[in-house]
Amino acid sequence: MPVGTLANVKTLTPAQLQETGAQMILSNTYHLHLQPGEAIVAAGGGLHKFMGWKGPMLTDSGGFQVFSLSEMRKISEEGVTFRSPHDGQIIKLTPERSIEIQNMLGADVIMAFDECPPATASRQEVETATERTYRWLLRCMSAHQRPEEQALFGIVQGGVYLDLRCQAVEALAKLDLPGYAIGGVSVGEEPELIHKIVQATAPLLPHHKPRYLMGVGTYQEMVIAIASGVDLFDCVIPTRWARHGTAMVQGERWNLKNAKFREDFTPLDETCPCYTCQNFTRAYISHLVRSQEILAYTLLSIHNITELIRFTQRIREAILNDTFVAEFGKWLISQEMRS
Amino acid sequence: MPVGTLANVKTLTPAQLQETGAQMILSNTYHLHLQPGEAIVAAGGGLHKFMGWKGPMLTDSGGFQVFSLSEMRKISEEGVTFRSPHDGQIIKLTPERSIEIQNMLGADVIMAFDECPPATASRQEVETATERTYRWLLRCMSAHQRPEEQALFGIVQGGVYLDLRCQAVEALAKLDLPGYAIGGVSVGEEPELIHKIVQATAPLLPHHKPRYLMGVGTYQEMVIAIASGVDLFDCVIPTRWARHGTAMVQGERWNLKNAKFREDFTPLDETCPCYTCQNFTRAYISHLVRSQEILAYTLLSIHNITELIRFTQRIREAILNDTFVAEFGKWLISQEMRS
Repeated sequence: MPVGTLANVKTLTPAQLQETGAQMILSNTYHLHLQPGEAIVAAGGGLHKFMGWKGPMLTDSGGFQVFSLSEMRKISEEGVTFRSPHDGQIIKLTPERSIEIQNMLGADVIMAFDECPPATASRQEVETATERTYRWLLRCMSAHQRPEEQALFGIVQGGVYLDLRCQAVEALAKLDLPGYAIGGVSVGEEPELIHKIVQATAPLLPHHKPRYLMGVGTYQEMVIAIASGVDLFDCVIPTRWARHGTAMVQGERWNLKNAKFREDFTPLDETCPCYTCQNFTRAYISHLVRSQEILAYTLLSIHNITELIRFTQRIREAILNDTFVAEFGKWLISQEMRS
Repeated sequence: MPVGTLANVKTLTPAQLQETGAQMILSNTYHLHLQPGEAIVAAGGGLHKFMGWKGPMLTDSGGFQVFSLSEMRKISEEGVTFRSPHDGQIIKLTPERSIEIQNMLGADVIMAFDECPPATASRQEVETATERTYRWLLRCMSAHQRPEEQALFGIVQGGVYLDLRCQAVEALAKLDLPGYAIGGVSVGEEPELIHKIVQATAPLLPHHKPRYLMGVGTYQEMVIAIASGVDLFDCVIPTRWARHGTAMVQGERWNLKNAKFREDFTPLDETCPCYTCQNFTRAYISHLVRSQEILAYTLLSIHNITELIRFTQRIREAILNDTFVAEFGKWLISQEMRS
């Protein structure tokens, strides 16, 4: 899922996004609550209509942003209060409020409001947060007003403590939710630790329900997670790197400002069917990046998203053809050799 | 002609630009000489191929930018030397060099290198510049290496002095060039003065050749100029205003940050066939502008260019139907009443 934080995937029209092959996108409840506010989105007919995206859509709960972005944060059993970075006013977010906002936004998948401790948290802090996340999930389920239209996913916390993860999975699985997510990864821990958490947690989740690894989605992370059973990812990297003038090409990361691209009149990737690769050269994109032209970021976002979507499409085909290990094993091996 | 300064019309892909109905675009020799340099554009197959624009294209001579942008400028009969704002190096631009660069860029229409004095110049200074512009034009014609592929237009200078304009036209018309431009307007003088210069100059130019008013292109200016015989315009306003969050709607100028648009779920212009108006509301665009999302500038650029192109299309139809005065006379009258 490409990330469309503020009701748009940055620099792209929905038409351009659809051409990348993207099916489902993510939008952020926290950001949309602050601007334009869920009331305006609802008055505009819901998020799909407001932003012109006809495909499936997921909103997160706002929990991650409250914990990672906001100042003056106070956590209690009731919920979280924090100061709006927009206008300084005090905002209270609770499981009920998060679900109410997500019901108003109207995405196809909505996420439970969870407490997401940082990588530096102690075991005791993580344990407390994980238990609270479970109690908050029950409140989210009770508060949910549109269960027929919006699938509510629960989130497994537990930090780097595999026994806590395991306990959390067990409790959540009993609730028979429409989908499950692994949260609280990619919050500052080492990549090898992310891999271990995913490899230990994903296989425990119900196999007949979608499994979603939150905030992760580059090449190796996806291969490892898919091998462990994960179905869904979201990641800002393809669009964020694009806005830094970086192309993702067959597993590599290219800075288009590099002098070698100035007179390179080949496409970014000759095998890529995207609009960018079909119409423009590395030299042209390098020129646009050097000139800080916005079109550079659009063209690179189109390519980078297409590249990652194609990567997952190749994995899907390999799984269906029973050639996953043969084709993608190198990503697994290189990780094992490093850890 | 939408302006594509650095080999792109800012924020738009060629596909999006084509959908606006734009046929011909302008690119700037001065900017392209500095970045990426004409050698790279030529090595990439020329400007059309480099930037992916299949329609007609015009490059200016670089003269206007040299006179308006650069520091450390020295003018002589030979040409102009100035300091590159890129890397500080001294660059010399002459009629021969400007044509050589434009021959390498490869646009369909290229412009003679002219001296464009500011609105504050004295009559003597303007007279000197106008005469020099003529001598430079003769040198441009001699230097032009691709006359079969690239039409070289001459530029009428003469400042606000109608007798100088008249003399310049007379001299240029004798050269039987493929097209003629009115330069040196919109350099700081009052709108009424621009109208007077255009109304006095355009009708004198050969009627069977394209007449191009440089750097002008909003509603009233175009109506007045077209009534005087002008065929071609270029203007950065539709894309520049778009990047300031401003929509051009049926002759008006709207700031999308205005509170009244926050909950307005109608398109910018219900009569407009552009991608923006067909898919998005004022409320959504207002949200994107408030969030400083790049997509706002793309959507507004699409609309603003479409709006101005449609305006000229309506004028063209009115001329063919002999209803120009009835339909567009109000733009002429309001100007006359003010002046």
